[in-house]
Amino acid sequence: MPDRLSQQFAFLLEIDRLKQINRQTLIADGTRRENDAEHSWHLAVMATLLAEYAPPDTDIARVTRMLLVHDVVEIDAGDTYCYDQSACATQSQREQAAADRIFAMLPADQAADIRKLWEEFEARQTPESRFAAALDRVQPVLLNYHTQGRAWQEKGVTRAQVIERNQHIEAGAPRLWAYIEQLIDDAVTKGYLNP
Amino acid sequence: MPDRLSQQFAFLLEIDRLKQINRQTLIADGTRRENDAEHSWHLAVMATLLAEYAPPDTDIARVTRMLLVHDVVEIDAGDTYCYDQSACATQSQREQAAADRIFAMLPADQAADIRKLWEEFEARQTPESRFAAALDRVQPVLLNYHTQGRAWQEKGVTRAQVIERNQHIEAGAPRLWAYIEQLIDDAVTKGYLNP
Repeated sequence: MPDRLSQQFAFLLEIDRLKQINRQTLIADGTRRENDAEHSWHLAVMATLLAEYAPPDTDIARVTRMLLVHDVVEIDAGDTYCYDQSACATQSQREQAAADRIFAMLPADQAADIRKLWEEFEARQTPESRFAAALDRVQPVLLNYHTQGRAWQEKGVTRAQVIERNQHIEAGAPRLWAYIEQLIDDAVTKGYLNP
Repeated sequence: MPDRLSQQFAFLLEIDRLKQINRQTLIADGTRRENDAEHSWHLAVMATLLAEYAPPDTDIARVTRMLLVHDVVEIDAGDTYCYDQSACATQSQREQAAADRIFAMLPADQAADIRKLWEEFEARQTPESRFAAALDRVQPVLLNYHTQGRAWQEKGVTRAQVIERNQHIEAGAPRLWAYIEQLIDDAVTKGYLNP
């Protein structure tokens, strides 16, 4: 087996562990928590089907690749709950260490390429990363709404926190933010989310 | 909410059910079966990282989109075990009916686009669909090998059956087939797969 291919397969086996990293969000039927692999798949499909809400000339293939690998660092760093201040304080350091270890399993050219994609996603300075980050926030709101806000209720999250956490959707996909804002208000009306 | 966006979100919620469709294959640590959403994510990452093994000029963005939706019909049709002859006999009919219902939830232009992608995948007549289909076979062999062939053993599958089922990898990605053939032979040597 050529060494390059063995490195690629070792990485592809390693990231299988993303199937075991559970998120706070429930899947749509409410029976269990979603894992990062499922979440990444869902976002990648959203990139394809909601491409028309990205700014003109956004490279959707790049958005898709970004979304497919954006959570790989959580294999080591875990899913950081976004309303947990203390976990958030160490998140960046834990995720950088994870990126150092996991991406380095790939051949050097691909390791650099995937790392760049992930750093672009984290920095949110390009239309592609802003759109990807918007989808990464749209999807959990959608699932939280359709599971009657259970994940919100468990943590006592309020409307103001959800707005603050998610309003960067506006920068990446303004028309989706208009929809998500309505959904958040409707969630308060229905008692899924604390005012 | 515009009607188009409501159709798109209804479809995106509907396909959440793919997270509940279990496959025969175990995830790499052997603790449980893989579901279709995780499988589709894994294949899409493989398309990105193994692109160099596709024939020249293969459109990898199209391969990726194809892989992201290739199993959506299993929401209604279920996962058909590939070594089960009677299930295979009705598979096409069940999947066509599923495609009729599920893809039609999307706005007409997108429904037609996704249906075309899925039909292209099924027909395996283009470099994109042949490469996608190759990855769809490479991934379960990889997982079966790394779980000591448990899914093979449970069904009493033989080497000849695995070769017959998977040899179309050669048409889509000859260099990957050379590797997979070695893995299959090694699985026999190690007692993971019946000779």
